[in-house]
Amino acid sequence: MPDLRPVFFVIGLMSAALGILMFIPMLVDLFDEARAWQAFGIAGGITTLFGTLLATITYTPNPDLRARGAFVLTVFSWLTLSILSALPFLFEPINLSITDALFESTSGITTTGATILTGLDDMPRGVLMWRALLQWIGGVGIIVTAMAVLPMLKVGGMQLFRLESSDMGEKILPRAASLAIGISLVYLTLTLLCFAGYMLTDMNWFDALAHAMTTLATGGYSTSDASMGGFMDSGADIVAVVFMIAGGMPFGIYLLMTTRGDWGAPLRDSQVRAFLTVITCLIAIMTLFLLLSDQFEFSRGLRLAAFNTVSIVTGTGYATTDYASWGPFAVSAFFAFMFIGGCAGSTACSIKIFRYQVAFEALRNYLFRMPRQHSVVPMRYGGRPLPPSVVYSVMSYFFVFFLTFVVTAILLSLIGLDPITAWSGAGSAVANVGPGLGDIIGPSGTYQDLPGTAKWILLTAMIIGRLEIVTALVLLTPAFWRS
Amino acid sequence: MPDLRPVFFVIGLMSAALGILMFIPMLVDLFDEARAWQAFGIAGGITTLFGTLLATITYTPNPDLRARGAFVLTVFSWLTLSILSALPFLFEPINLSITDALFESTSGITTTGATILTGLDDMPRGVLMWRALLQWIGGVGIIVTAMAVLPMLKVGGMQLFRLESSDMGEKILPRAASLAIGISLVYLTLTLLCFAGYMLTDMNWFDALAHAMTTLATGGYSTSDASMGGFMDSGADIVAVVFMIAGGMPFGIYLLMTTRGDWGAPLRDSQVRAFLTVITCLIAIMTLFLLLSDQFEFSRGLRLAAFNTVSIVTGTGYATTDYASWGPFAVSAFFAFMFIGGCAGSTACSIKIFRYQVAFEALRNYLFRMPRQHSVVPMRYGGRPLPPSVVYSVMSYFFVFFLTFVVTAILLSLIGLDPITAWSGAGSAVANVGPGLGDIIGPSGTYQDLPGTAKWILLTAMIIGRLEIVTALVLLTPAFWRS
Ligand SMILES: [K+]
Ligand SMILES: [K+]
Repeated sequence: MPDLRPVFFVIGLMSAALGILMFIPMLVDLFDEARAWQAFGIAGGITTLFGTLLATITYTPNPDLRARGAFVLTVFSWLTLSILSALPFLFEPINLSITDALFESTSGITTTGATILTGLDDMPRGVLMWRALLQWIGGVGIIVTAMAVLPMLKVGGMQLFRLESSDMGEKILPRAASLAIGISLVYLTLTLLCFAGYMLTDMNWFDALAHAMTTLATGGYSTSDASMGGFMDSGADIVAVVFMIAGGMPFGIYLLMTTRGDWGAPLRDSQVRAFLTVITCLIAIMTLFLLLSDQFEFSRGLRLAAFNTVSIVTGTGYATTDYASWGPFAVSAFFAFMFIGGCAGSTACSIKIFRYQVAFEALRNYLFRMPRQHSVVPMRYGGRPLPPSVVYSVMSYFFVFFLTFVVTAILLSLIGLDPITAWSGAGSAVANVGPGLGDIIGPSGTYQDLPGTAKWILLTAMIIGRLEIVTALVLLTPAFWRS
Repeated sequence: MPDLRPVFFVIGLMSAALGILMFIPMLVDLFDEARAWQAFGIAGGITTLFGTLLATITYTPNPDLRARGAFVLTVFSWLTLSILSALPFLFEPINLSITDALFESTSGITTTGATILTGLDDMPRGVLMWRALLQWIGGVGIIVTAMAVLPMLKVGGMQLFRLESSDMGEKILPRAASLAIGISLVYLTLTLLCFAGYMLTDMNWFDALAHAMTTLATGGYSTSDASMGGFMDSGADIVAVVFMIAGGMPFGIYLLMTTRGDWGAPLRDSQVRAFLTVITCLIAIMTLFLLLSDQFEFSRGLRLAAFNTVSIVTGTGYATTDYASWGPFAVSAFFAFMFIGGCAGSTACSIKIFRYQVAFEALRNYLFRMPRQHSVVPMRYGGRPLPPSVVYSVMSYFFVFFLTFVVTAILLSLIGLDPITAWSGAGSAVANVGPGLGDIIGPSGTYQDLPGTAKWILLTAMIIGRLEIVTALVLLTPAFWRS
């Protein structure tokens, strides 16, 4: 049993920071003279106090974590922040039920973007700002987790992305802190660029800011019930495509570009090349389909195909249109696209490009060996040897990902959801995409009308998905807790 | 490039045998004075002649095969037999289109059991006998392939089931021939026992025989449009459950029992234990669901649950009722059950129990290693060490299985099938189950109304699924054909 005081100390600091963040929407609503400022004021006070107290009582002079502590920290920090960030939704005048509040906050901080709210266009701007902030910090949180923590813990093959400096030992906290600063600067810069892009369209500064935050986070919360549909004609979809792709890129690449001036890094990175190739091919296929089925002329077809493909592949989940009207091919294709995801070390979730690369390399290797009856031929990834332990991790990840997906879908069916809603909702939650398929939770629907049990199942799936599943699963094994 | 004469010699012999088999339905229809005897007569003549000619011109004194030749033989023998066995359906008075004839014969010989025929109850008995025979020989064919050929070729982890005698070298043909005799005797005996069981119910001798053949083959073709629904009240469902399970057992176990008198073998076999445990648990869950949702009283609920669960898990695909009326849980659960399958070395298809065992062992091992940062801890299967190459093969199989499934589903969507039909039809074809879900191809539907392109996609998926996918895929790699 590891010493968990450093874990709760860090969670205390994070909670206090979250509490302070709540004063931003409070100020927005004070300025707007919207009564929702009170909810953010109360929740911010409680959260800051809770965080400070927790950090105080768990303070140790030299906090550091080894592997097992880092697992506990990762899982419990996401859980705690999901719960605390639901607080503002609970108070007057927002006043959601506990289920709805927790669904909305979890969906936000995991960057899933499934919403139970309707009437967004008339919502106090503080509430919209809070939802955008949640996704924004969730996004940067997952990048730091994916770069500083998961590679060391060998989660799902992420050990492929150990930085050179990680050979210096297992001091996780100092590394995470220094990495967090660099990543945050890059993330902030990209968000500001995206904001500037949106300002060139019909968006006012508030919509531009909120959408910039949820675009980089590949989160998908919008300030309008029509999602991006209302802004498309002025070119917001083009800005979104660029920055959703930027959000799905490995952020380590940006650090190489900025700190070392290595501007060719993206083109040399095997994962980035594969990611951009996949996106280009899928957009081409969808555009061709829209043209051949005579649904749109070329430029509109291309824009719709590009926007919706990038939105689903990166797991952002913005919608401009209900693509169910494009026919069964679009529905099946977008359902499958949910399981692709962006690059490792990005804000995107789902299976991710590098795992497909590893799986295809393993398959290629296996098909090569089979007829020759060779027992071993070395595998490679990105020009370097691929250790068997990485292949095992990746393969186990695939297995446990689909298991989680299927179990979630069956549980949702058990409480009576129709198959389309159950299976697409399960996939969308585990892959942190947001919208599902069908009349209820499709691109033009809302999660509001689902039964409470369904919301609990889905928000659990979102957290498990965001934690790359195995990070959460390992805490449930008895072996983890044995000394 | 291997010498392919032995391959075509064996295919010639198989074709000649298939042609001779066609005279059985011919005799049935001659006896019944049904005009369909002509179709079987002509097709039988052509097929026997073709097979004899092929074997004659490719004869070599000492035919034997190495690994690559065995791959070619496996793939081309299933292809050739699928095509030849469609011949009777093409001639007057049966007179199906080429697409329909090939769909019906492929669905038969791969033991899938999806049918484009309706009005089975009034069909000439020769046609019904031919459909049952196709599944029966397909069933024994896959057992022999799975026991004698695939383990040697290391297909999808089947090397776990190398018999001890396989250390003697790679002489595939003699082994396969001697194994085929033993297996065929066991298979015949079990079929006769099943026939006797059905004779105790309301079935007449013809229905009993036809169903016995398609039960052991876990094939699912029936002699009635109502499938087993019409015979259930007299207890045919109970006989079917017993012998569908028998068909899903590893036939090597039966050889151990009969040739060595080792009657405890099934209970010591880790795969058999897991198979029976899984089936028992799933039946218990479905029964509980039917009871709690107040749909049936206990004994009827148990029988319906047991029959339909075993029918789908083993991939037989008989129906007694349209379980879609049981609600969304049943639909989702039965959809997921398609991907389980029986044991390796049985007539069942799909992913199969041992692959799940290997995947769970790999996952357990990975979860154990992760927090401790151990690099390697040995894995075990059935009390013996599990070599890494087997884990790779199994994991690659999972990956390529789901890839095939998704690609098939998307292709079916592309030609306009609704999502439920496309995804369930794809799963049902790749896993060789038979019925899909929804109004068109569900348990009470038929594949007749699908567009021709859909039938071609589905029959291709059936063959690829029956060949354990990688067996077919490896022939498509350029590396296979290089010396
Ligand atoms: K999202
Ligand atoms: K079947």
